Amino acid sequence: MTNISANTFTLGLVQMRCEAEPAANLERTLSAIHRAARNGAQIICLQELFRSSYFCQRQDPSLFDLAETIPGPTTERLALAARETGAVIAASLFERRTAGVYHNTAVVFDADGRMCGLYRKMHIPDDPLYFEKYYFTPGDTGFRVFDTRYGRVGVLVCWDQWFPEAARLTALQGAEVLLYPTAIGWHPSEKAEYGAAQREAWTLMQRSHAIANGVYVAAVNRIGHEGSADGGLQFWGSSFVCDPFGVILGQSSEEGEEVLVVPCDRRRLEDVRRNWPFLRDRRIDAYGDLTRRWIQ
Amino acid sequence: MTNISANTFTLGLVQMRCEAEPAANLERTLSAIHRAARNGAQIICLQELFRSSYFCQRQDPSLFDLAETIPGPTTERLALAARETGAVIAASLFERRTAGVYHNTAVVFDADGRMCGLYRKMHIPDDPLYFEKYYFTPGDTGFRVFDTRYGRVGVLVCWDQWFPEAARLTALQGAEVLLYPTAIGWHPSEKAEYGAAQREAWTLMQRSHAIANGVYVAAVNRIGHEGSADGGLQFWGSSFVCDPFGVILGQSSEEGEEVLVVPCDRRRLEDVRRNWPFLRDRRIDAYGDLTRRWIQ
Repeated sequence: MTNISANTFTLGLVQMRCEAEPAANLERTLSAIHRAARNGAQIICLQELFRSSYFCQRQDPSLFDLAETIPGPTTERLALAARETGAVIAASLFERRTAGVYHNTAVVFDADGRMCGLYRKMHIPDDPLYFEKYYFTPGDTGFRVFDTRYGRVGVLVCWDQWFPEAARLTALQGAEVLLYPTAIGWHPSEKAEYGAAQREAWTLMQRSHAIANGVYVAAVNRIGHEGSADGGLQFWGSSFVCDPFGVILGQSSEEGEEVLVVPCDRRRLEDVRRNWPFLRDRRIDAYGDLTRRWIQ
Repeated sequence: MTNISANTFTLGLVQMRCEAEPAANLERTLSAIHRAARNGAQIICLQELFRSSYFCQRQDPSLFDLAETIPGPTTERLALAARETGAVIAASLFERRTAGVYHNTAVVFDADGRMCGLYRKMHIPDDPLYFEKYYFTPGDTGFRVFDTRYGRVGVLVCWDQWFPEAARLTALQGAEVLLYPTAIGWHPSEKAEYGAAQREAWTLMQRSHAIANGVYVAAVNRIGHEGSADGGLQFWGSSFVCDPFGVILGQSSEEGEEVLVVPCDRRRLEDVRRNWPFLRDRRIDAYGDLTRRWIQ
């Protein structure tokens, strides 16, 4: 156990490969949660939809069977893991809210196992091999923060990371860290030409949220190839934590299963916001049109 | 003259050192505008407050003498330069609107010399050696675009570059490129410890606007040390253009006077927005609180 104080909170990011069998993924994830906690992690973030393969590569109504209620069997196990480890856990689940209403949902458990609440992914992608609009009703929670034993945590999910509005609205509620469970990878046929630029853009956008808002940011992505052998998706891992000025404090590899543990200093957050006082200068009188689709 | 077509527009960025004498800076800038146009630039962007040293390092009422009306003597010269070169010019001026109301204002001239309009810097910084709130009344223009012979251009100014809202509101009006006249530098005493991270954050934020909005971005910064020999500011140049996925297409050096000419392909903009359709998925129903200062 690392030495902690009120000035710090320590993040743990669980980057894994997913197998076909949800039960196996859950067990391996629970094991990784315990390992992260033993290494000092106080706030542990799992990758998007960690319980299953990234099933959105195809549209198949039988795949809705993967969804679970919240609370449900998986949240029970996660709550127990939080209580056992004394760590906060942010987990991404495929939620069955009712027949015909499913969400891509993040659940936060406090260190005593209590469920703090949930956030339903607000921005839903839909692109070749990412057919999420088929599976996920867009969230109706709005953007949220959760008060936990180790700090005020904002959780957003994957595609949300491309939208500065999501980061801003979460940070304005006092989030000290934005957590992004993620499942993003390359189309293997594109990797040679576009791969570097795509991963760079992904990292850069999230670092920009840290800077614009003066918050820590953590992104947790899966690894491994999933889908057809001549296509599919190659998930690029590269989970990372950056500080409130966008400086990367730790990053996992592109291909390895890793538990990344990164201490974060609240004094750094205070210091960055004093020296780069963007929140002071926002022109809130002039932002009304951000609720428009297009301005002509 | 480079070969042009309707599929491209070519940016020209004029990065310079400023002298004490405004007349000399104006003449050297006009000469650089002609040079940029000869090299194929169609839309030329000048650095922030190109006519003078960065006077905001101290608060001195006599420095308001540097301001000019718009239109005024400098805009006349710039309009003539636009007409002579057939290039669009975006210029940053210290505007005297009336006694006691001064602005940090960008003016856009079309290729025939007509003034398209102006934008008054909306976000005003105020930090050690950047005492801008003393000089500049915050803009009341809102965020704007300008239709020119070579494309629809958005102009924002320096501190605006840290605010995703400004980029978004300009892009939503159809800007193909966001131009950022800039004056940013290091406190020499901080450069060794923080310099790299500061310049990296500055570049990164603007690249993030390109990605989030699918637009080209150009930032034009001055070079040189200004102010007291044992302090002052070391402007870091590094003017650059990036494409709608944040890829840097050209960048000037940290210390040299340079005219950077970069062709931009509209088909790239179309292509990026098809493949990364963020504008499709904005949750405009959930962004209302962006007009709040803080949410508790």
